[in-house]
Amino acid sequence: MQEETIQEFIQKAATLVEALPYIREFEGKTIVIKYGGSAMENPVLQRSTAEDVVLMRYVGMNPVVVHGGGPAINRTLDRFGIKPQFRNGLRVTDSETMSVVEMVLAGSINKELVSLLNVAGGNAVGLTGKDGNLIHAKQLEIDGGGDIGRVGVVTGIDFKVVDVLCGAGMIPVIAPIATDTDGNTWNVNADTAAGEIAASLQAEKLVFLTDTPGLLRDVEDPSTLIHQVRYKEVESLKAQGVIAGGMIPKVDACLRGLDHGVRKTHIIDGRIPHSLLLEIFTVRGLGTLVCH
Amino acid sequence: MQEETIQEFIQKAATLVEALPYIREFEGKTIVIKYGGSAMENPVLQRSTAEDVVLMRYVGMNPVVVHGGGPAINRTLDRFGIKPQFRNGLRVTDSETMSVVEMVLAGSINKELVSLLNVAGGNAVGLTGKDGNLIHAKQLEIDGGGDIGRVGVVTGIDFKVVDVLCGAGMIPVIAPIATDTDGNTWNVNADTAAGEIAASLQAEKLVFLTDTPGLLRDVEDPSTLIHQVRYKEVESLKAQGVIAGGMIPKVDACLRGLDHGVRKTHIIDGRIPHSLLLEIFTVRGLGTLVCH
Amino acid sequence: MQEETIQEFIQKAATLVEALPYIREFEGKTIVIKYGGSAMENPVLQRSTAEDVVLMRYVGMNPVVVHGGGPAINRTLDRFGIKPQFRNGLRVTDSETMSVVEMVLAGSINKELVSLLNVAGGNAVGLTGKDGNLIHAKQLEIDGGGDIGRVGVVTGIDFKVVDVLCGAGMIPVIAPIATDTDGNTWNVNADTAAGEIAASLQAEKLVFLTDTPGLLRDVEDPSTLIHQVRYKEVESLKAQGVIAGGMIPKVDACLRGLDHGVRKTHIIDGRIPHSLLLEIFTVRGLGTLVCH
Amino acid sequence: MQEETIQEFIQKAATLVEALPYIREFEGKTIVIKYGGSAMENPVLQRSTAEDVVLMRYVGMNPVVVHGGGPAINRTLDRFGIKPQFRNGLRVTDSETMSVVEMVLAGSINKELVSLLNVAGGNAVGLTGKDGNLIHAKQLEIDGGGDIGRVGVVTGIDFKVVDVLCGAGMIPVIAPIATDTDGNTWNVNADTAAGEIAASLQAEKLVFLTDTPGLLRDVEDPSTLIHQVRYKEVESLKAQGVIAGGMIPKVDACLRGLDHGVRKTHIIDGRIPHSLLLEIFTVRGLGTLVCH
Amino acid sequence: MQEETIQEFIQKAATLVEALPYIREFEGKTIVIKYGGSAMENPVLQRSTAEDVVLMRYVGMNPVVVHGGGPAINRTLDRFGIKPQFRNGLRVTDSETMSVVEMVLAGSINKELVSLLNVAGGNAVGLTGKDGNLIHAKQLEIDGGGDIGRVGVVTGIDFKVVDVLCGAGMIPVIAPIATDTDGNTWNVNADTAAGEIAASLQAEKLVFLTDTPGLLRDVEDPSTLIHQVRYKEVESLKAQGVIAGGMIPKVDACLRGLDHGVRKTHIIDGRIPHSLLLEIFTVRGLGTLVCH
Amino acid sequence: MQEETIQEFIQKAATLVEALPYIREFEGKTIVIKYGGSAMENPVLQRSTAEDVVLMRYVGMNPVVVHGGGPAINRTLDRFGIKPQFRNGLRVTDSETMSVVEMVLAGSINKELVSLLNVAGGNAVGLTGKDGNLIHAKQLEIDGGGDIGRVGVVTGIDFKVVDVLCGAGMIPVIAPIATDTDGNTWNVNADTAAGEIAASLQAEKLVFLTDTPGLLRDVEDPSTLIHQVRYKEVESLKAQGVIAGGMIPKVDACLRGLDHGVRKTHIIDGRIPHSLLLEIFTVRGLGTLVCH
Repeated sequence: MQEETIQEFIQKAATLVEALPYIREFEGKTIVIKYGGSAMENPVLQRSTAEDVVLMRYVGMNPVVVHGGGPAINRTLDRFGIKPQFRNGLRVTDSETMSVVEMVLAGSINKELVSLLNVAGGNAVGLTGKDGNLIHAKQLEIDGGGDIGRVGVVTGIDFKVVDVLCGAGMIPVIAPIATDTDGNTWNVNADTAAGEIAASLQAEKLVFLTDTPGLLRDVEDPSTLIHQVRYKEVESLKAQGVIAGGMIPKVDACLRGLDHGVRKTHIIDGRIPHSLLLEIFTVRGLGTLVCH
Repeated sequence: MQEETIQEFIQKAATLVEALPYIREFEGKTIVIKYGGSAMENPVLQRSTAEDVVLMRYVGMNPVVVHGGGPAINRTLDRFGIKPQFRNGLRVTDSETMSVVEMVLAGSINKELVSLLNVAGGNAVGLTGKDGNLIHAKQLEIDGGGDIGRVGVVTGIDFKVVDVLCGAGMIPVIAPIATDTDGNTWNVNADTAAGEIAASLQAEKLVFLTDTPGLLRDVEDPSTLIHQVRYKEVESLKAQGVIAGGMIPKVDACLRGLDHGVRKTHIIDGRIPHSLLLEIFTVRGLGTLVCH
Repeated sequence: MQEETIQEFIQKAATLVEALPYIREFEGKTIVIKYGGSAMENPVLQRSTAEDVVLMRYVGMNPVVVHGGGPAINRTLDRFGIKPQFRNGLRVTDSETMSVVEMVLAGSINKELVSLLNVAGGNAVGLTGKDGNLIHAKQLEIDGGGDIGRVGVVTGIDFKVVDVLCGAGMIPVIAPIATDTDGNTWNVNADTAAGEIAASLQAEKLVFLTDTPGLLRDVEDPSTLIHQVRYKEVESLKAQGVIAGGMIPKVDACLRGLDHGVRKTHIIDGRIPHSLLLEIFTVRGLGTLVCH
Repeated sequence: MQEETIQEFIQKAATLVEALPYIREFEGKTIVIKYGGSAMENPVLQRSTAEDVVLMRYVGMNPVVVHGGGPAINRTLDRFGIKPQFRNGLRVTDSETMSVVEMVLAGSINKELVSLLNVAGGNAVGLTGKDGNLIHAKQLEIDGGGDIGRVGVVTGIDFKVVDVLCGAGMIPVIAPIATDTDGNTWNVNADTAAGEIAASLQAEKLVFLTDTPGLLRDVEDPSTLIHQVRYKEVESLKAQGVIAGGMIPKVDACLRGLDHGVRKTHIIDGRIPHSLLLEIFTVRGLGTLVCH
Repeated sequence: MQEETIQEFIQKAATLVEALPYIREFEGKTIVIKYGGSAMENPVLQRSTAEDVVLMRYVGMNPVVVHGGGPAINRTLDRFGIKPQFRNGLRVTDSETMSVVEMVLAGSINKELVSLLNVAGGNAVGLTGKDGNLIHAKQLEIDGGGDIGRVGVVTGIDFKVVDVLCGAGMIPVIAPIATDTDGNTWNVNADTAAGEIAASLQAEKLVFLTDTPGLLRDVEDPSTLIHQVRYKEVESLKAQGVIAGGMIPKVDACLRGLDHGVRKTHIIDGRIPHSLLLEIFTVRGLGTLVCH
Repeated sequence: MQEETIQEFIQKAATLVEALPYIREFEGKTIVIKYGGSAMENPVLQRSTAEDVVLMRYVGMNPVVVHGGGPAINRTLDRFGIKPQFRNGLRVTDSETMSVVEMVLAGSINKELVSLLNVAGGNAVGLTGKDGNLIHAKQLEIDGGGDIGRVGVVTGIDFKVVDVLCGAGMIPVIAPIATDTDGNTWNVNADTAAGEIAASLQAEKLVFLTDTPGLLRDVEDPSTLIHQVRYKEVESLKAQGVIAGGMIPKVDACLRGLDHGVRKTHIIDGRIPHSLLLEIFTVRGLGTLVCH
């Protein structure tokens, strides 16, 4: 016992024993994870997040990853010399922009995440909403009319391909590109897509990896973290401006999931290494829990 | 009987009856199709080829599509201002070029083919060699040394993801991007990839859709089509220069397949609408059959 | 392309593409076919009908054949010197007649059809209503009383043996002989039996092969073919005498099927080679469709 | 205990306990039974034999019944006025005779046995060698040439239909009619057919129900019953004339079965009610055992 | 036929044929047997009862054995010098007594029964209510309060372990020891436990092996055996004192079973060898049938 | 982050990540654990060991527990007034002693372990070698002859019952009592039984929980722990007296396991809480590894 102290042993054992009931509880359950922010950009966090997802798979859960785009899209649009256009404050996605967005999401970011998961020992398979007709969408209607281009709202999920891959022990990694019966391409919000997929799969959990500690009462002050938000409190928190900006689609996706049988939804800090693992396998949990 | 002549009825019935033994013979069998050339570019041919693949699936075969790149890659490289470099007559694929090639193949061409098949009534799922660790490769060694960059040779196929998708009635559509245990990206020849995949699946058939009537004794004269090439004749036909240029990787892929249990391999004219259907379901067959 | 004209290729491809949605629609569906008339007597039509049934099986449908008797029964009764007797206009089937009828139906006609289907590449198995307790019947009661002998009305279908054989890829061929719990033999109307079997199997289609173009408004004039009869129109058409004679049990069997979940029922011209195939796999359809 | 004596109880219990190891031993095993003679003609024996077969099925065995023809065929040939012809001492079966034989075997005798088994509580399905392509045959060649007509020798068994029916808890009842790839009809020896079917199924037992106590050393003296014949003793017993006449095809069928994995073969006295049951479920056994 | 008379054959066959409908009726059905009294103590009866249970298993039933304690418990308590204590006329089971009772039931009697069944050719597995959390109980509340110790009443059955063992062809042998979520040990009445287990399994039959001919109108006179008791007659028979003493928990267990789907319940004379077999497989039945 | 320090988070995450490859490696694998010493006697260790076994089950392993006897047996023998007898230095186990040993092992210790595992959230089922005919033995022959009584050596393992229970997610807990075809009871060494069971199951691991740190070069000095012993070194270590006394049957059981496909065998310190968990899920491992 000279090499490793008894104290270390006790701590290790305690952690394993703490994780025990969660492994049991979540066996065979689906966990939808929305990747984004630093967890997707920072190499160290990329690796730790990939390890977390693979571990979830090893212990018998069905992790499903949904990712967004981020800086890479703008970099590529720049190189193509495509200038952003706006209408009613919303970015217009014309066909050419859509092609580039699809190419970057499906051909670059998605494949990078697949590789990260596979190098970590997983068996990941990248998908867009076109593959297996996974995500169907129609054009977003904007107030006051006007054509917003290829920005879509999700109209349906056919989760069979996700089910088949999970059933074979694989990890689906999904880019937020949708299609329709004519084969058109639609750009959908990744947070919303994650919510819809979690709802259709009646997932156990929906987890958003973000660059904040969670939902903050004062966005400048991490100590104002709200640990738990009840479904019925959301409206009032929006009215108070606590749920605002990029938090709105995330919280709405949580509600959408809760409406359709998702058990618990979480907004956690993706900047802490292994935050996903700690959220799932420890008593305390991290960030903000949104639940009934 | 006034509206449609008896004669038409007889012809229709004859065609259906002719197709009968083939539907029986190929039920549950895997057919690997290498898309390329006009069948991938021309809208009419795109549609007819997609219909053919979907029909094969409907009648119980397992079609697996492998595609190449084509003009879209060069157009995008141009827009990025990337200039082609050559070494020993081979194009050098540096990391930047590789990123663009992957983005176009996996994020643009692959998804377009998936959409075409889905609009035709199929349930297609796009893959690269990274997805499900499908295609592993290492760097191509070139004579005289020198670094050719991200050009790879296939070192292994893990066909599980293809198997799982076929088993669920879906159509895998594969871009010729490979990976390795470090998660690197390798560009592999699409013809070769098709051959390796057919070999690993012990496919019933491997079919190349090309822009020629098949293997021609005189490349200028379609009437010199060679209907059948025996495995053992290949070496001599290469020596005579009949098998040359772009035909070499195709014929080599045929041989590779035949070595590993593929029953028949075909090089057919993708410019004829429904050439795939006619090749599979009619007595005569089209193009060149390469077999033992 | 010198040997077979492009035009022929185009027509063949068009036929295959036309058949595509039907193959898809009917995969795994049960089609009950009532053989009779020329399709059962004429050698050319025997072969073409057998090919049609086998093709249906190949492409994944579950064809179930029900046949009647025809001239062979009378020829054999004649040779035995059995004279027909009538009561209330109905033929009396005494025990001796019943024995001969059963022998001819089950031992001669049924086995000939089984052989035809097997030579065409199928795997047919002949059954009577005794086999697997498939068809139960009781004595037909006639107006004014009187003993009509072994003429039965169907009281129940136990379709397990049909299900088991279809599930194993075989084609059940059924003679209209019924039984009861005492093991008695009953002669039942073949059209009625086909309707009951289709109803119990909740078949997709019930098709009668007849020696007329379908239901004719004027039985002498083929140009008066009624392409479609709605369920609710049947009573009125009977009152008008359009549905009369041998058409009555056929149309009644159609209604019986429709009552129990059969999707579509057809009365078609068995004198046209491959009429069954053309009915199933072409847009136009043949003969008369009876549906809701 | 006044109504039924203790003694009766003890005997009943003893019988059940004696049967125990046999029920265990034969669970899931196939037993091929060749019906013939009195067991097929006498109403009391018909019923008791049917009960025996159904009991075997109830306790988990897979009984398969093969039957012959008997007097009914000659009666029908007589009524048709067909006169027997002979060549080299063998009856010539011309096409017309064959039709009648098939009609009687498949349409009359076979269906009567099916009914008997079903009335006894079984679920029997009648088959000929045409059904499911079960028995293939070619013409018997006779010494000195000459055309013997439709007399066939078995060339192959495709037992799938038997397997499928047994697997569904049904009892196949097989008439000795064979076919070939052209759909011809062949009359085969029922004893031989039973042996071939038992061999192809690698049956546990093959049992012949006959009108003798078994193989007798002196055919006139039942007390000369041979209880057991070893495979290697057969040749010498034939040379001595002990195995002669109708016993030859039976014993040859036993040997054929033993060659292909049948465990035990029996020739027993079908004139004793429930002889089949007693043979299977009691220590002593009946008749003659032919084994390795 | 000189060695065994025809008469014996006829009787054997009759017994087997009589047993036939019962083997059919009970295939795959669960029969819960409460062992007790002489059937558990007398070596001859032990063997015959074990044979009966094994035969039931062989012919496809799922026998489940529940046993009580008997003299062995008192002998062991004596050797330990533990004196019985009573409260309100009920024996108090303190922890020490409970330990001894568990040790004797689970470690001695249960294992002896397992061995008896295995020597008879079965594959038995001994269980207590702790194994697989099979029987849950809480403390019995007694009138007027007071602590009765470890005497429990059943609060729930988790029959999974019984199901799994039956499904694998094994025979569960259950000692009436129960547990709770804290892992405590409770002594439950074996008759009651048998009733609860039969109810939870929705058994076909529940059979009590006792040392009386059944329920007697006059307990001194075997000729007053009541062959059948209807559910609704029980209350009145209790009021009359016909159902009294040790019969009360048995009859109550019968009613409990009948309430939850058990088809028939029996109280039979375990002193007659093979009484279980005769009850199950003969027309007459033994003892008293309690049913709806 | 004020409540739980970042440091703690990092340590927890590190432990979970360390455990990851082991959970993956051992999924679906069988681990045979020999309980004994303090881990079986000390309440704290009982609980922690039970938690460890249940965790193994939760993460998909198949733990199988084998236990010995210990002080409880002697206490009970004392209370019965049974005096130990010795022959050739071995304790003689007469029938009376055997009964007590069986009662204590199967009825007391085994059930206590089952309860411990069930309270910890498992689904344990207690077995002896009689249950499911699991362990067969014959009398141990001792040098110089003489009857050692009911001391047995294992002659065979029928692991079906263990397999069935593991397959249903249950945890078999096995007492070292064996049987034979006559139903006799044999006392076998628990270490040896564990080795035989691990060998028959071709377990991944065999782990002995002991009251020492492992195999010590100097039994008085824990710092002389031997971390790894190769199969081929065992003989020499025995000759040196390093492997001696109670270590001999343990090491021999390890070798027996290794001979039959067990991958790794361990002798670890059961006095450290969660030593089993730490051995399985951490890089370092505890105690002595015996391997090829």
